[in-house]
Amino acid sequence: MTDMEKQFVVGVDVGGQTSKIGVVDARGDVLVQSVIRTDGHEDPAEFVHDLAVAIRELVIKSGKEGQIRGVGVGAPNGNYYTGEIAFAPNLVWAANRNVPFAQLLSAALDGVPVSLTNDANAAAVGEMTYGVAKGMKHFIMITLGTGVGSGIVINGEVVYGNDGFAGELGHTCAVRHNGRLCGCGKTGCLEAYCSAMGVARTAREWLEQSDEPSLLRSIDNITSKDVYEAAKEGDELAIRIFNFTGRILGEKLADFIEFSAPEAIVLFGGLARAKEFIYQPTYEAMNANVLPLWRGKVELLFSQLKESDAAILGASALAWEL
Amino acid sequence: MTDMEKQFVVGVDVGGQTSKIGVVDARGDVLVQSVIRTDGHEDPAEFVHDLAVAIRELVIKSGKEGQIRGVGVGAPNGNYYTGEIAFAPNLVWAANRNVPFAQLLSAALDGVPVSLTNDANAAAVGEMTYGVAKGMKHFIMITLGTGVGSGIVINGEVVYGNDGFAGELGHTCAVRHNGRLCGCGKTGCLEAYCSAMGVARTAREWLEQSDEPSLLRSIDNITSKDVYEAAKEGDELAIRIFNFTGRILGEKLADFIEFSAPEAIVLFGGLARAKEFIYQPTYEAMNANVLPLWRGKVELLFSQLKESDAAILGASALAWEL
Repeated sequence: MTDMEKQFVVGVDVGGQTSKIGVVDARGDVLVQSVIRTDGHEDPAEFVHDLAVAIRELVIKSGKEGQIRGVGVGAPNGNYYTGEIAFAPNLVWAANRNVPFAQLLSAALDGVPVSLTNDANAAAVGEMTYGVAKGMKHFIMITLGTGVGSGIVINGEVVYGNDGFAGELGHTCAVRHNGRLCGCGKTGCLEAYCSAMGVARTAREWLEQSDEPSLLRSIDNITSKDVYEAAKEGDELAIRIFNFTGRILGEKLADFIEFSAPEAIVLFGGLARAKEFIYQPTYEAMNANVLPLWRGKVELLFSQLKESDAAILGASALAWEL
Repeated sequence: MTDMEKQFVVGVDVGGQTSKIGVVDARGDVLVQSVIRTDGHEDPAEFVHDLAVAIRELVIKSGKEGQIRGVGVGAPNGNYYTGEIAFAPNLVWAANRNVPFAQLLSAALDGVPVSLTNDANAAAVGEMTYGVAKGMKHFIMITLGTGVGSGIVINGEVVYGNDGFAGELGHTCAVRHNGRLCGCGKTGCLEAYCSAMGVARTAREWLEQSDEPSLLRSIDNITSKDVYEAAKEGDELAIRIFNFTGRILGEKLADFIEFSAPEAIVLFGGLARAKEFIYQPTYEAMNANVLPLWRGKVELLFSQLKESDAAILGASALAWEL
């Protein structure tokens, strides 16, 4: 069998706590999947060893031995050009060093090709291969998770830039003066407002600033999910939090449209599940702030991929290009 | 002679008042050039006729008849995909309509191929072909003229986006609240602060707001050139105007770097001539506002192309791709 005849790929989504593995076919069906701990190791070689063992076991379980074209990996701070995971604060074994991850994993799998990128770029490739961006040449993926990530597609290709790190739209400036401190050390970043943590922070700040009644007052350690649940109950403060979040997001989306003139912006991740509250304010602010020539012309879409499969699919899609 | 053996191109820079024409060789030398009026016609067909006559005359003068590979045109609101100039407020004959310019000009030149783009994209192609960005695959051109334009190059290609209009960085938002009204109808655009008109406006506003002595007080209808001349004389207000302008520009450049991770940003146009005053504040603000991973890593360059030739060269460079 030649490499091009191999009709299955493996997708690996490396997260801070766990890593998800799946064997995927060309239609985007995840045949089998499994999970291993990411955080049990200090040494990257140990994690790579465990991951290789788990991949081999899963491939055997799928019955597709010898038919795997390659492995695609999505990981925080993953660099497509170098195959390295560099100084990723959320990965114990890569927090303070540069790990040649693709090379290590390929060696541990007896030379099976491995392609790696960051998680948001993987999500963009997944959306383009299997999702709402199928057939699009120009779109921007925004992942609204714990942080805000992005994957930019121009002419059908993910933009990696000169060094492989392009597409850090979560750290463009949303609030110029007296903005919130972001995890990256800067202030006012989009991520500090429009991530799950940003939404929770808005809730805490607003609850402190007034005595307005709200379902959120009874909750300790408010999360963005709590805000969503309260909004569904009709809580006015919670609904205003989504309006505020959507406005800030939409204002920045207008800037992004003026950069690359995409067909669509695709939202993905935990906050995107609150579509009924976030769509309208985001879409309105995007159109109010963009040049007239794009007003009403750029679609604002929400990922339709099954949440449990999406991360694996995104990573696996990389492997088709190998 | 086959088309590929034709070793000369024509560059046309269409401006509001005049259009410059040049015959250019592969090294980027402008052999001969001429100028015609742009604003003498209401009918686009009449202007195209005059332009075609002027191009023929210039080619005869250059002695390169039959050796012209094609014509490249840079024009406000020029669309690379469609070859149209669409609703360009500064062009009398295209202010209220969509002119199929490339098609009309090619027909008037008996089928010589014509390629068209907007002036900032043409400048980026010129810089990549003949200028400081030669050999670069990833850079962003910012033209600081009457307005602020941009041409974005990723993987060695100008980004045109889904509709041909990508790269309107002059209209991304620099000042979110209570920003200046921009010519485009939005408020707070980069162009409203960092164009020649923006600098003049800053001068007028600041002179009104204080009684601080300044050489600028004696001048009617202050231009950005006046501010530059005053700064060269050591005028403190004028120097602070450049610091302010550079800071706003640098803040937005940080956003742009986070989008496409370029090797360099190239500044071009009238304001870029004030390099000794604009470089330092721009570079400092860019690095203070960008993610640590890019700090000190992205070059801030100034175009070295001869001012009189640059617009023609930029447009002509398009024709090599024909």
